[in-house]
Order: sequence, then structure tokens, then C-alpha cells
Amino acid sequence: MHVYTPGLHILATFTAPVYHLLDAGTCQQFFDQQIAALHLTKVGEVYHTFPNGSFTAVVGLTESHLSIHTWPEHGLATFDVFLSNFQQDNSATVRQLYAETLRFFEATEQTKTEVVR
Amino acid sequence: MHVYTPGLHILATFTAPVYHLLDAGTCQQFFDQQIAALHLTKVGEVYHTFPNGSFTAVVGLTESHLSIHTWPEHGLATFDVFLSNFQQDNSATVRQLYAETLRFFEATEQTKTEVVR
Repeated sequence: MHVYTPGLHILATFTAPVYHLLDAGTCQQFFDQQIAALHLTKVGEVYHTFPNGSFTAVVGLTESHLSIHTWPEHGLATFDVFLSNFQQDNSATVRQLYAETLRFFEATEQTKTEVVR
Repeated sequence: MHVYTPGLHILATFTAPVYHLLDAGTCQQFFDQQIAALHLTKVGEVYHTFPNGSFTAVVGLTESHLSIHTWPEHGLATFDVFLSNFQQDNSATVRQLYAETLRFFEATEQTKTEVVR
């Protein structure tokens, strides 16, 4: 039985205006701003835009990762943020980054699951 | 209310022999083999090894993503696989990739959460 619990993971699905779901570049700027503001450390990233303009991003952090996948044809996105508590309790930061993401995307939450890992 | 449900996401924590949790290169080979065998499409990846030998990987797929974060000092890893059902139902593939990952890592599952997103 392990006793170490790495941290909080939020998984969400939200609806948002289509122009946000088609704009990987502005999303990347937003994520980079958040990573800096929240004193997180990026170790690499993948941003991929599909022929229909939807995009997928996964960002590796020393604290774990965040990801987004957009479906503009359905007006929605799935979003994940998982931060470990290696040096400090990052649960509040997970919730803050999620709240800022909803605000940035002008989003309406459809589902949210919190997993304490 | 959205009606589109992108797909199945498995989040797990498992214990494994430390030598697996220190070997990002062999993990990368394994993930690449699985991606090919399961006819998935990689669009980018991040593999980062920390000074203590633990590693973080996030892999972007056209079907969504997979990720792993290892804590050799605690003998465990957190693993995610999320595949959307854009062209086919990938739920069985999610479960197969997870089962193969447990086998590869000689792992013992500690927690597993399935989220239908």
C-alpha cells in the first residue's frame, strides 16, 4: 500500500465560443502566462492544430502536466490539470489554473471531476 | 447541454520496480511500440528526466494523450490514457494500453479511475 499521494488532478469538459476553440496560438500564450504567474516550470510542450482548426495541447511541467483538446464542431473542449505536491501543496493552484482557464475561454463548465492521486 | 462525449480516460497510480521508474528511454520505446501496434497517431511528445532519475512524459495523439510521472523514491508512478472516439470507439484500446503498461512496468495497480468524458 503506497502512502505518497502525488496531488490533485482536475478533469473538465466545457463549452466555449468557437473562436477560442480554433486558436491554439492564443491558448499557448495564455498557458505560458499562467505557468509564469503561478510559478510553475514547463519542461516541454506539444501544440497540434488539425485541418479543421481544432487543436490538442499537452504541456509537461516539473509539477506534472496540463492538457486541452478542442472540438469546435461540438463547441466544447476537454481540459486537464494535474500538479504534484513535491515541494508545496499545489491543490489551490490546480483550482486557480482551472478557474482562470474557464475565464479565458469564456467557458461554461459541463463536467468536472477531481481526483486526488 | 452538450451531447458529444469524447471518450474514455483512465487515471491510475501503480507501484513498480525502481529500475523501470528510472528509465525514460525504454518507456519511450514501449509507448512508441504501443502507439504503432494500436494504430494511434502521435503528434508530439515531451520526455523529461529529473536529476534524481525520475521522469515525466506527456504524449500528444490525434486521439488525445497519454502521460506518466514517476516517483522512484516512492516506488510508484501515475499514468493517464485518454482516447477520443472520433473515428471509432477507442474504449477497448484505452483499457488494452493500460493493461500493457501495467505488464511492461511489472506494476501493481494501487488506484484506477475511469472517467467517461
